[in-house]
Parts: sequence; structure tokens; C-alpha cells
Amino acid sequence: MSTEPLFKRVALIGFGLIGGSIARAARAQGLAGEIVTSARSAKTRARVEELRVVDRVLETNAEAVKGADLVILCIPVGACGPVAEEIAPFLEQDAIVSDVGSVKGAIARDMGPHIPQGVHFVPAHPVAGTEHSGPDSGFAELFINRWCILTPPEGTDAAAVEKLREFWAGLGAKVEIMTPDHHDLVLAITSHLPHLIAYTIVGTADELAQVTSSEVIKFSAGGFRDFTRIAASDPTMWRDVFLANKEAVLEMLGTFNEDLSKLTRAIRRNDGEALFEHFTRTRAIRRGIVEIGQDSAAPDFGRPHANLTKKPE
Amino acid sequence: MSTEPLFKRVALIGFGLIGGSIARAARAQGLAGEIVTSARSAKTRARVEELRVVDRVLETNAEAVKGADLVILCIPVGACGPVAEEIAPFLEQDAIVSDVGSVKGAIARDMGPHIPQGVHFVPAHPVAGTEHSGPDSGFAELFINRWCILTPPEGTDAAAVEKLREFWAGLGAKVEIMTPDHHDLVLAITSHLPHLIAYTIVGTADELAQVTSSEVIKFSAGGFRDFTRIAASDPTMWRDVFLANKEAVLEMLGTFNEDLSKLTRAIRRNDGEALFEHFTRTRAIRRGIVEIGQDSAAPDFGRPHANLTKKPE
Repeated sequence: MSTEPLFKRVALIGFGLIGGSIARAARAQGLAGEIVTSARSAKTRARVEELRVVDRVLETNAEAVKGADLVILCIPVGACGPVAEEIAPFLEQDAIVSDVGSVKGAIARDMGPHIPQGVHFVPAHPVAGTEHSGPDSGFAELFINRWCILTPPEGTDAAAVEKLREFWAGLGAKVEIMTPDHHDLVLAITSHLPHLIAYTIVGTADELAQVTSSEVIKFSAGGFRDFTRIAASDPTMWRDVFLANKEAVLEMLGTFNEDLSKLTRAIRRNDGEALFEHFTRTRAIRRGIVEIGQDSAAPDFGRPHANLTKKPE
Repeated sequence: MSTEPLFKRVALIGFGLIGGSIARAARAQGLAGEIVTSARSAKTRARVEELRVVDRVLETNAEAVKGADLVILCIPVGACGPVAEEIAPFLEQDAIVSDVGSVKGAIARDMGPHIPQGVHFVPAHPVAGTEHSGPDSGFAELFINRWCILTPPEGTDAAAVEKLREFWAGLGAKVEIMTPDHHDLVLAITSHLPHLIAYTIVGTADELAQVTSSEVIKFSAGGFRDFTRIAASDPTMWRDVFLANKEAVLEMLGTFNEDLSKLTRAIRRNDGEALFEHFTRTRAIRRGIVEIGQDSAAPDFGRPHANLTKKPE
């Protein structure tokens, strides 16, 4: 590219699935003159250097953010407040500070007060991920066709918001702007409650007296295995999500419990008609998701199948 | 193959995902001299004939089972009793009658009494499927590496059981034998409860006042979309499963509700330690499932990702 990159220097604080994916995609798209990250442990620094997807790996967050015009915290929600406080004195004037947290009310509350005058605070949440974590798990294509939600506080500089929007669009994402409160309600149903329920049922299956774990694992293709993917997500990240979005999660959980009671009652009363009606209705949502490219149309999420081979006679 | 096929004539009653997959796989593996099926509607008969995966499509079940040495009912559990009664007078001596139902206690109770003396009754349940249904949805590889559970009543002819085991092994499945009651408990947790919960949460998301359906669809990559796949399964089949396996489903649901209350309480009390401990434990089950080849090790079930393309400057 002959034109200037969008940012001179992007500092990624945290290099797990999301940080690592941003680095790879931003580099592939030439969105940053330089990409730096930091890691406290020498072992992690060595690993990230080996991956050769960032320009420098620094020992402290303070060093990493110096001279950066975009700083993105890619760490669990609960760590964002303290890290914002830590880096505040080292931030450049006019820099944009953002994050990737799955809860936005708590981010506004915990990070907001630490952001110095003259620095633009534009929280973000890319709605994308896999069940893998750690520096090796990232990949450049993670954000393609996924939404990234920005929740700038009222009065945020419009040019800063636009620049961050361009950055995420460059990574392949579609960008939408919301209030933190609405974001937290939407994500409570599209992400947080599904994770809570998946974590619950996988735990239930693991502790049954009448059915062994080995049976659960063997016969998981009946549906259960679909839940185990998101129940294998990063525990620290998810602990923080539930603590930070408590109110909205409890509210959605209340509605879910009412609906589960209704279906349970239909089963108990042999009300086949109510069950059939409900099961027919839920097909439409899947169709909508596939139609707008948010999931694969292939059966079974496109899971691979082996070929049939005839046994030798 | 120079040797005789395992069965002279296989009659498949019902030609949806499972019936259609059995036909394709049995033909590919040369397991049957002839494969026949039946359909009441002329339109379905025409469609199945077009697919060219069976030898003949007959108008009635009675005609289909005549001369068959293996008859498999590939229809919803609730229809199996009446169809067993209907075909009973036309079954050949020494034929094997089986099914593919997801509940086995009800099958023993509803089909068992109609099976004539001299005919072998060996119920079966291949633990495999996709969210698609209908005659076009089947494929020969569906059963590869999946388990098929046989639940022969006490005293069933061992040679008949062995022959059906060979048939399923030929389709690529691993075969296991259980009592109907134990089968129904195992499947209640590995398949029925996951479906009930998926149906519930997809319904919940569809009816919220604060979050629109379009938002649910757009931001579904946060976890929700994983649930929509099994909530798009065949409504008739699943209505019958819940009515037929009521006791075991209600029992598992009781345990699930207790566990969900425990996690809810941990969130309400800000007990991060309890959440972290639970979320760490559930990772092991996923590992077990991937290790024995019951799910893909690729992130996101191996869902495809588009390539990054640089925008033209």
C-alpha cells in the first residue's frame, strides 16, 4: 500500500485469542505502522516473539502504550479497570483507548474514570471467538463478517469513533454503535445466557450417578456435544462476564426459567400440540442466522464426515 | 463383491434423514440384495424414485415388508406402535424387525406386542443425525464412527442380534447393547435434555421485549447460534421423544435445574471462585469427546471462515 496506515502504532494489552487475532489481521491488512504487545512472563514474551505477528513484545504495559495512537485492552473484563489506571499516565494525547470486553456497562464504569483528558475512550466488543484461548489460538480471519459493537460514551470525539470503526472494518467486521446498557442486554441473551446454560448442562452430565462420564462422551453426538464447545471457553474470561453483567444475566435467566417451566409442564401433561407448536417456531431463527451468513448452512455446522470404506472380504 | 449380501431385501418404512441415510450407506456397502421403501403420497414416491437410492418405492407398508428379511421403521417414535400392528400380518418368518427411535422403553412397549411369533424384534437407535430432515437430507456417511445402540428384549435370538450388529457395523457404526431403560436414561442427558434446553432458549430469545429478533440473529455468533442448530430439528420427531421418554427427561431436568440454581446463586453472591471452579471442570468433557473422535478438534466445530481481502485504495 502506498498510503499511510490507519494507526502509527497499535498497542495490544493482552495476547490471547482476541489480541492475537487482531495482531494477525491488522498486520495482514496493513492497518498499523507498528504493532506492539506486552507480557509479564518471560515465557509468554518468548512465545509471542516466536509467532512473529507483532513487531515488539515489551515487559510492561506502560512501555507498550508509550507512543501508541491506538491502545486495545484484550484482557478479561475484571482486569480492565486496574490496567486502565496503570497505563493512564503513559498514554499519548489524542490516542484512542479501547477494549474488547463482552460487558460494556462495567467497562464504562471501571475504565472511564481513569482515561485522561485529551485521550479518546471508545469501548468495543467484537462478537466473535472460538473455544480456544492463549497466544497460539488467534487467526487473521476471526472477525470477518462478525459484528463489532462500539459503545462510546456520550460526547466522545466523532472522528475517534470513526477511526476505530475503520480499523474494525479493516479487520473484516461490521460495526454497530449502541449504548452500554443495551449492549449488555443483547449480549446477555445472545452470548452470556447460552454460555451459562452450556456450562450448567455439561456440569450436570459430569456428575450423574446413573450415567457414567464415559457414556456421556460416547453418546454425545445426540446433541450434547454441541454444548461442550462453548463450555470449554476460557474460565477467567467467563467468570468476569457473569460478575460484570449480573443484572442482565439474572433477568434473562428469569425469562428462560419461565419458558423452561412452560415446556416442562407441556411434557408432564402430555401436551404434544404445545410442544409441536414451540418446536416449529424455533426453526425460523436458525434460518435467519444462516441467511445473513452468521452460521454455516451445511448440516451439523459442516462437521467433517469420514468416507465409507468397504471391509475387505 | 462375490459373496452374498447380508440381507436379501431390506424394507425401510419411512424415508427421512435416517431412512435415506441407511438406504444410501447400505447400497454403497452392498449390504442388501434389494432395498425397498414405501410412501403414501405420490409426490414423495416420485421424489424418492428420482433420488435413485432404493430399488423400489411401494404404495403401502404391507407391500414393502413382504419378502423382506430386514424391516426397519424409520419414523417418529409415536408412529411405531400403529405401524408395527399394520405390517405384522405381512412379515416373513425369521425376518428381523427393527427401528431407529430415540426412545427404547416406549418402542418395546408399543411395538413388542405386535411382533408375530418367529419374527425377531431387535430395536436399534443410531446416535447420529443432523438438523435437516426429509428424503433429500440423508447421506451415506452419517453413521460413520457414531454409536448404534441395540436393545433386544430378553430371550431374543442371538443370531438375529448379531446379524443386525453386522449390518450397522457395515454402515460404519460402532454397536453397543443396553437395556431399554438404561438407554432412555443415557439419551435423556446426552440428547433429549440438550434439545429441550436448546428449544427453550431459542424460544426465549424470540419473545423478548427488550431485544429484537433481528439483534438476536445478528449477534448470535456470541454463542447463541450453537443452540439454534438442534432447535431446528424435526418437530414431530422431537414431540414424540419428549412424550415417550417423559420420566427420564423430567428426572434429568430436575438435576439440571438444581445445578442451574447453584450457578445462579454464585452469580448473585459474586462468588467468582465457585464460577471459576465450575468453568474449569467442564473443559475436560469436551477434551474427552474430541479425543474419541465424537467431535471435531478444529475451533468452532470447523466452521468455515472467509479470507481477508484488502479493500481497494
